[in-house]
Amino acid sequence: MTDLDSLYKAIEKVTGKQRITREPEELVCHSFDATGRSVVPDIVVFPAATLEVSKILEIASSYKVCVTPRGSGSGMTGGTLPMGGGIVMAMGRMNRILEIDTENLIARVEPGVVTGDLHRAVEQRGLFYPPDPASASFCTIGGNIGECAGGPKAVKYGVTRDYVLGLEAVLPSGRIIHTGVKTAKGVAGYDLTRLIVGSEGTLAVVTAVTLRLIPLPEAVKTMAVVFDSIKKAAETVSGIIRESVVPRCVEFLDRASIDCVRKDVKLDLPGTVEAILIIEVDGSRETVEVDARKVEAYCHKQGASAVVVAGTPEEAAELWKARKALSPAMFKIAPNKINEDIVVPINRIPDMVAKIESIKKSSGLTVVSFGHAGDGNIHCNIMYDKRDKDQLKRAEAAVDALFDATLSLGGTITGEHGVGITKKPYLLKEVGPTEIEIMRGIKQVFDPGNLLNPGKIF
Amino acid sequence: MTDLDSLYKAIEKVTGKQRITREPEELVCHSFDATGRSVVPDIVVFPAATLEVSKILEIASSYKVCVTPRGSGSGMTGGTLPMGGGIVMAMGRMNRILEIDTENLIARVEPGVVTGDLHRAVEQRGLFYPPDPASASFCTIGGNIGECAGGPKAVKYGVTRDYVLGLEAVLPSGRIIHTGVKTAKGVAGYDLTRLIVGSEGTLAVVTAVTLRLIPLPEAVKTMAVVFDSIKKAAETVSGIIRESVVPRCVEFLDRASIDCVRKDVKLDLPGTVEAILIIEVDGSRETVEVDARKVEAYCHKQGASAVVVAGTPEEAAELWKARKALSPAMFKIAPNKINEDIVVPINRIPDMVAKIESIKKSSGLTVVSFGHAGDGNIHCNIMYDKRDKDQLKRAEAAVDALFDATLSLGGTITGEHGVGITKKPYLLKEVGPTEIEIMRGIKQVFDPGNLLNPGKIF
Repeated sequence: MTDLDSLYKAIEKVTGKQRITREPEELVCHSFDATGRSVVPDIVVFPAATLEVSKILEIASSYKVCVTPRGSGSGMTGGTLPMGGGIVMAMGRMNRILEIDTENLIARVEPGVVTGDLHRAVEQRGLFYPPDPASASFCTIGGNIGECAGGPKAVKYGVTRDYVLGLEAVLPSGRIIHTGVKTAKGVAGYDLTRLIVGSEGTLAVVTAVTLRLIPLPEAVKTMAVVFDSIKKAAETVSGIIRESVVPRCVEFLDRASIDCVRKDVKLDLPGTVEAILIIEVDGSRETVEVDARKVEAYCHKQGASAVVVAGTPEEAAELWKARKALSPAMFKIAPNKINEDIVVPINRIPDMVAKIESIKKSSGLTVVSFGHAGDGNIHCNIMYDKRDKDQLKRAEAAVDALFDATLSLGGTITGEHGVGITKKPYLLKEVGPTEIEIMRGIKQVFDPGNLLNPGKIF
Repeated sequence: MTDLDSLYKAIEKVTGKQRITREPEELVCHSFDATGRSVVPDIVVFPAATLEVSKILEIASSYKVCVTPRGSGSGMTGGTLPMGGGIVMAMGRMNRILEIDTENLIARVEPGVVTGDLHRAVEQRGLFYPPDPASASFCTIGGNIGECAGGPKAVKYGVTRDYVLGLEAVLPSGRIIHTGVKTAKGVAGYDLTRLIVGSEGTLAVVTAVTLRLIPLPEAVKTMAVVFDSIKKAAETVSGIIRESVVPRCVEFLDRASIDCVRKDVKLDLPGTVEAILIIEVDGSRETVEVDARKVEAYCHKQGASAVVVAGTPEEAAELWKARKALSPAMFKIAPNKINEDIVVPINRIPDMVAKIESIKKSSGLTVVSFGHAGDGNIHCNIMYDKRDKDQLKRAEAAVDALFDATLSLGGTITGEHGVGITKKPYLLKEVGPTEIEIMRGIKQVFDPGNLLNPGKIF
């Protein structure tokens, strides 16, 4: 019996035969994420409870075998790829909403809960969990915590970090820890909660989460604003909060994005369209009417060609269709994309948009830009065919140029996708060697054997 | 020449003669905080720039001498007492507001900036920095970061952590690090920013801070709500957000608090007063009127004896006077107080209030409760005379009972004051040994010689 056989047997005693596998098909299914890359593990386990997670990690640790936790595999930077081989721990079976406490405005959930399911469950009770990554209908809260997911509503409501009050998590050794509080405030000791949020599953496996909720806004107003120049659109984004109101989102679509979805989505667009902003305001019924009018007036002042305000939720859904259809539609342009979620200070968006235009020209590749412009977060997709060596080289050069431009404008190379493996070669552009040494030291404290999701971030 | 003489000379070369001292009077002035405890250092330095902080730490480190950073010394848990002797690093000279960026809604400040000065500076530009500890007129941003300060507006706006985007800080070795971003989003590597926030000056000396600002609300409405029963007041606090609106603060004063300030502040109160809530709503002019009426109606439904709505800013200031006069006024009751900033889930406030009443009775001591009830954060002040051994014993037993009750209700022993030295003996009641081991490990990564603010938290 090999070591791997013996490890398998030991874990099987914890999970039973049903929740562990090394069938090749299953291994492949759990080998990739949204980057399209694949690293096949040796074993996949499906724990159903914290104590099982703990025992599996203890056993793996005694065998010195790596463990990579995984939600839905919708990550954009390879965070769930098992670079060290060994075990993939698929958290999807731990998908219970344990509690929605309407008196204290908190929810307790397991990590495998799908974000969209949580949205619906709390909204039925008049509450609101704002973080909403584009993958909300299939990504999980555990994954959102790993990457500190954001989404369009971050402009007004912040990101995952801002809603995580406390965690139950398991260290690589198998020891269970509890961090944070169930209350709005709490400062007993170092903030292990926010250290684990955004640590990309490299410090501990999260097994339960206490989330802060807020009251559901009474009303939402959605509008699409059309521009005949990308510069005007960019300037509108950077001025809107200063000059009018804080919208809950300001999404940006450039011309390449619009062309991508034009055929799929019924878009009745006037004249020359170089950019569209999708803007939403929310609040009380009285406020949204006033705020929507302020936004509309500001957009016209900025030279918008048209402002279409949705009158009903159905009309609003229609406006969002174009935005949501984008990710899959882009593959019509080229078989491969490099999707970078750069962020710049909002007043530098016009500069960044100009920079992207120039990178597009110099690379000769199609670059599609869209995203959460309201917080400076632009998803810049460089489209190429990786079988074409020359295209690959130009795409890689474009990424380099893109990151350099972002950093020179005071931005960051990743707003919400994390570093994983795809941005690892670029981390030193943004984070200094001393800071990385500190991060490595922290990793060592949590995971002295480097067994939990190794090979990521730094 | 002793080692201390030689250390003094070495640092003097960095600061010049004017910004280093070992005059006994100066040492005493920098030996205490708001706990009233005093630990006299050997040297006090007043760095004026990041590079000086770096050089001083490097020198102290080579002498293996402890350094304790300090803001205004308004801390409540002994966080700035130099327990290891050595050097107190007074950050008050680094008090420049470096930038208020109205386009990107951020401010960059040095750590010695007084919080109230920042409030005024950003409000003049139509912006808002919500964290507002009661000591805002003299405490500093550096100290607020050390403790993750909160204040009344946390109900709606969160705490210091929610506004810190990035830090420049110096490690005990003297190495300068930069954490976080200047943008709304950013997830490149572990979240060192929020790890340093709330670390009570034990990991690094913060030398510059990037803060997130928000637009200043257009209007504020303040009201005082009077109750003839503490139970009714507590139930109103726990129901108000669920049943009406999210106020920006809900401050609570019990009868002992009211008695404390009755003579100093002109309070025109009807009949039996057992508790007062000070409630503020903010937002657009339209919203605050609607919201204030909702709150008023809800309070009447809950059996409030009176609701006094301030018509002008002056009337609002008058309502706040009682709350602000409390801390100093309490010393009329007894020469010593133990001020504990416990937090419980908001629906447990009625239980907590009952528990405090019973602790009051069993201890035979005066216990004054007030504070940020809207987020479950009650400042519970146990008044005693420490020269009376029996009183001291009863006060200590009362603290034990208070913390046990808080934790049994799902709360935390500290919402915003930190652990420091005063809560250190109680930390294990809330935080487990494995979690503390992790925190010690992190401390070791930042400060292998245990030279920066030693003896704190754990």
